[in-house]
Amino acid sequence: MEEVNDRDKAVFEAGIKLGALYHQFIGTPVSKDTADSLERTIEESIILQPYVRSISVSIDREMVAKKQNPKFGYCELEGRMLNVSLQVRYKSMIAYAELAYEEENDYPMMSVKKIEEM
Amino acid sequence: MEEVNDRDKAVFEAGIKLGALYHQFIGTPVSKDTADSLERTIEESIILQPYVRSISVSIDREMVAKKQNPKFGYCELEGRMLNVSLQVRYKSMIAYAELAYEEENDYPMMSVKKIEEM
Amino acid sequence: MEEVNDRDKAVFEAGIKLGALYHQFIGTPVSKDTADSLERTIEESIILQPYVRSISVSIDREMVAKKQNPKFGYCELEGRMLNVSLQVRYKSMIAYAELAYEEENDYPMMSVKKIEEM
Amino acid sequence: MEEVNDRDKAVFEAGIKLGALYHQFIGTPVSKDTADSLERTIEESIILQPYVRSISVSIDREMVAKKQNPKFGYCELEGRMLNVSLQVRYKSMIAYAELAYEEENDYPMMSVKKIEEM
Repeated sequence: MEEVNDRDKAVFEAGIKLGALYHQFIGTPVSKDTADSLERTIEESIILQPYVRSISVSIDREMVAKKQNPKFGYCELEGRMLNVSLQVRYKSMIAYAELAYEEENDYPMMSVKKIEEM
Repeated sequence: MEEVNDRDKAVFEAGIKLGALYHQFIGTPVSKDTADSLERTIEESIILQPYVRSISVSIDREMVAKKQNPKFGYCELEGRMLNVSLQVRYKSMIAYAELAYEEENDYPMMSVKKIEEM
Repeated sequence: MEEVNDRDKAVFEAGIKLGALYHQFIGTPVSKDTADSLERTIEESIILQPYVRSISVSIDREMVAKKQNPKFGYCELEGRMLNVSLQVRYKSMIAYAELAYEEENDYPMMSVKKIEEM
Repeated sequence: MEEVNDRDKAVFEAGIKLGALYHQFIGTPVSKDTADSLERTIEESIILQPYVRSISVSIDREMVAKKQNPKFGYCELEGRMLNVSLQVRYKSMIAYAELAYEEENDYPMMSVKKIEEM
């Protein structure tokens, strides 16, 4: 057993943020016209949470266009539509994480990309 | 038993929208600085849904200020922070509904305010 | 303009419940093995809300099986997987409503089926 | 910059699960009578996700009792009602994490408790 260190904490917090974002906003009605403002609102809400250094959210417009119900003109935000890049800083450690659609597994994959000491 | 008419449908759709809005957005991290843009995003997402004629969402800033965690500087959106006015139109019938905090019951109350024929 | 009556209130409350249920539980991880218990939990949570007389929730097992990620063995609950029958009673009025997947529009449709006076 | 290792991945996945659980289930109507079955459903849904070795969810009955609306007999699940213990295994690394209400900060705190190699 090893002590929990700052690197662990940075990485753990990055995981929390992606899990939270995903399950908070999935299901939100969205269209090509509202994707922009939904992206900003997701960013603004997650950056409020502890240790978030920066976040960039992008919603796949092509997927939205394809999924928009022809009769009703909108769809629901799905995990696979989301591209998120996140930096979390805990003390001197920075974890870079992302959420990106993995086509081969048809899965919205969350991963740590790198970890840096400032 | 009576046939379901346009008035019923307008009122039913109004109920759907308030229930949806509530359970989609409750839990979103919010602060006094982000309340504005969260209001707009909620409005924009709900107006995408069928039959919504207009919607106005307002988040109680005082309650946000009071609930903001002093250490972390934000809180979660709660039902009692929400004031929503909604118009739903089904054919010639318009239902006016709202969500407002009812202090005596400490309950975020949804209600139909009036129903009009255009 | 007409006064809001008990029939309106029954129908409105039915809408609230379906909208709430949908946006609360969409996104929940589910598999063929857990669908049963998720159905019961959804029913139990919605029946707590005011005026609900009865509710029956059924998750489309075939759709779950088809959507289960082969690598990870589960999927997320989607609106189109849900079949819900709901009775709401306000005073002497009962509204029967449902949520069912409408294949021709590829849309999880909520509707009032009938309204009865007890 | 250091390479992302198995320990990082275990800890990151633990964070994802707690963030996901929180924002998926917060807002669910709950009472003392349904807390049991809601706990089981949350456990069953999270254990479906990748790398979860075990999870135990407990809802604070006292807080539920205190928050239950006297008129309506239920409340909404809040983060501070949740006690969660989670084990995530990535290859030979096990991360132990928890969600617990921290009274001094009035905050539902997520933390890594320890990390072990099997």
